[in-house]
Amino acid sequence: MNQISVIANAPEFTKGFVKELRIRWAHEEMGLSYTEIKVAHADLKSEDYLKLQPFGQVPYFQSGDLTLFESGAILHYLAIKNNKLIPNDESGRARTMSWLFASLNSIEPFVAQYFLVAKYFKSNEPEVIKKSFDLVHGRLGQLSKALNQNLYLENEFSIADIVMTTVLRDAYSMNMIEDYPNLIQYKERNEKRPAFIRALNDHAKLYGS
Amino acid sequence: MNQISVIANAPEFTKGFVKELRIRWAHEEMGLSYTEIKVAHADLKSEDYLKLQPFGQVPYFQSGDLTLFESGAILHYLAIKNNKLIPNDESGRARTMSWLFASLNSIEPFVAQYFLVAKYFKSNEPEVIKKSFDLVHGRLGQLSKALNQNLYLENEFSIADIVMTTVLRDAYSMNMIEDYPNLIQYKERNEKRPAFIRALNDHAKLYGS
Repeated sequence: MNQISVIANAPEFTKGFVKELRIRWAHEEMGLSYTEIKVAHADLKSEDYLKLQPFGQVPYFQSGDLTLFESGAILHYLAIKNNKLIPNDESGRARTMSWLFASLNSIEPFVAQYFLVAKYFKSNEPEVIKKSFDLVHGRLGQLSKALNQNLYLENEFSIADIVMTTVLRDAYSMNMIEDYPNLIQYKERNEKRPAFIRALNDHAKLYGS
Repeated sequence: MNQISVIANAPEFTKGFVKELRIRWAHEEMGLSYTEIKVAHADLKSEDYLKLQPFGQVPYFQSGDLTLFESGAILHYLAIKNNKLIPNDESGRARTMSWLFASLNSIEPFVAQYFLVAKYFKSNEPEVIKKSFDLVHGRLGQLSKALNQNLYLENEFSIADIVMTTVLRDAYSMNMIEDYPNLIQYKERNEKRPAFIRALNDHAKLYGS
């Protein structure tokens, strides 16, 4: 049985934005079951937890003797293992990996730096906040051009779309993509997938009623 | 023949820190040859270039009909294709991917946010700069604990070590790892590899004498 770690009592503002959601979503898309390993928020930095997830975050993933961390690596493992959510052919797989890494290294960090500057470090310098916003806005504009009117990042729905959709949910929540209707449409199209709805629903149960 | 795009006239301060270095290094380790596609700095944002690399960066990679971007995806492709710099077994491969994604999503973005806040956005708020530094310093501390006295991130030198070493070179240049002797040793050990030295040498030729 596959197991994924989730936070038992995360702060309410994280609802819908925790990375375990990506792994739930993939399981639902693939028709795989999994169980949750519920971890108290305070225990994420414990020595025992850090042995499984060196950065004290969720999710880590277990299947038999194998323990993995990083949502990108877990998604890739599931896709290859089950031959789902990734094309069959070598070139299609490699291109899907380009987009998987792009979502995690060329988009998410830029969304995150704005969150850090404006909300977490609480910069009081309007110019710094503007530069930070302009940087992520530019990146999202490049993504918008590359996606164009395609339904998915590659020919078919893949693990790259799972990550990019969750990253765009973050960006949307901070009003970063309102200038890019195709990104909004892409995000909303993927959010309507029954597998996403089930995953989000199960994730939301962690937060009580 | 494999081809990788490189910047023909990048600013001097980027010398030794451009991501194409990772791909050169992998080729050298694997005993593969490649040719450079030299791109002028001003052309990185051209329509033609963005079709090959949506974010206007180097490298993109070409091999026959296949075009890839994102250094992580290119390294993964080369490793799988050549069965080098990645373990042979399923579990070892998956764990190596955890570290490859960790270097790109859990370490590099934190190094980058400090660079952005302190050097690029030029924040004048000491408290913001301190929070930004503390964040990356904490992450690097977690990495230091996880690496411990191991030689490599997994049992053998892999594509994950290529990326992590280049990320630590960035961090080192901003005095972020001086509290973590094992990270300095790890970085310096990998920098002594003949394949790295050849790759860095070829990269440096782009900058003139």
